[in-house]
Amino acid sequence: MTEDLESRYRGYLAALNDRRFDDLAHFVRDRLSYNGEPLTRAEYRDMIAADVAAIPDLFFDARLVVAHGDRVACRIVFECTPEAEFLGFTPNGARLTFAEHVFYRFEDGRIAEVSSLIDRAAIAAQLR
Amino acid sequence: MTEDLESRYRGYLAALNDRRFDDLAHFVRDRLSYNGEPLTRAEYRDMIAADVAAIPDLFFDARLVVAHGDRVACRIVFECTPEAEFLGFTPNGARLTFAEHVFYRFEDGRIAEVSSLIDRAAIAAQLR
Repeated sequence: MTEDLESRYRGYLAALNDRRFDDLAHFVRDRLSYNGEPLTRAEYRDMIAADVAAIPDLFFDARLVVAHGDRVACRIVFECTPEAEFLGFTPNGARLTFAEHVFYRFEDGRIAEVSSLIDRAAIAAQLR
Repeated sequence: MTEDLESRYRGYLAALNDRRFDDLAHFVRDRLSYNGEPLTRAEYRDMIAADVAAIPDLFFDARLVVAHGDRVACRIVFECTPEAEFLGFTPNGARLTFAEHVFYRFEDGRIAEVSSLIDRAAIAAQLR
């Protein structure tokens, strides 16, 4: 089960990296909680699509994955060149490296809960 | 093994919360990597002791723990009232709530590697 969940999670990241957003229906529940806020899958998709629109080379690089039971934790490292405002930051054309540490709870094999921390301090420091 | 590692990790947090810093020898290797930097256990202990000196009511509240193989991931939520400068922030007497998302790799039952992300943006927003 644990191995299954990890490969399922990696499938989710592959869908994001391939921009197969329609496939999110396989990986994300109709309604989920994102950092404590209720979201529909459509809203979640729109949020990720907006990130990708601002950062065309956004690639979810899973550096550490820990999966157990219905939980997955991942350290994702982004190396990217944002082209438009993202997360409230205005890009300056520079290539950025920053991490996200994110926890997921799955229900019936699909993401039901996301708790994400993005290293905004690193982004701010690189844009300074 | 996975259950063992989780309970071992919870023992480590209990030692921190009880301020039993001498017990860190049981939980942390002589040399470790902290966010990519090499540290001795003494330096790691000093770092945590400095946080506790600045934030006497610092309590490591593990809200999510995911353990598998030699890895542990944890979402820790701090609700505390810093009394002196910490993480480069100057406290204003206010009670703060912020999260840390942290990954550990264990070797022979002791922490060998830490990759930590603290929600500095939340701290900055609450101190504004």
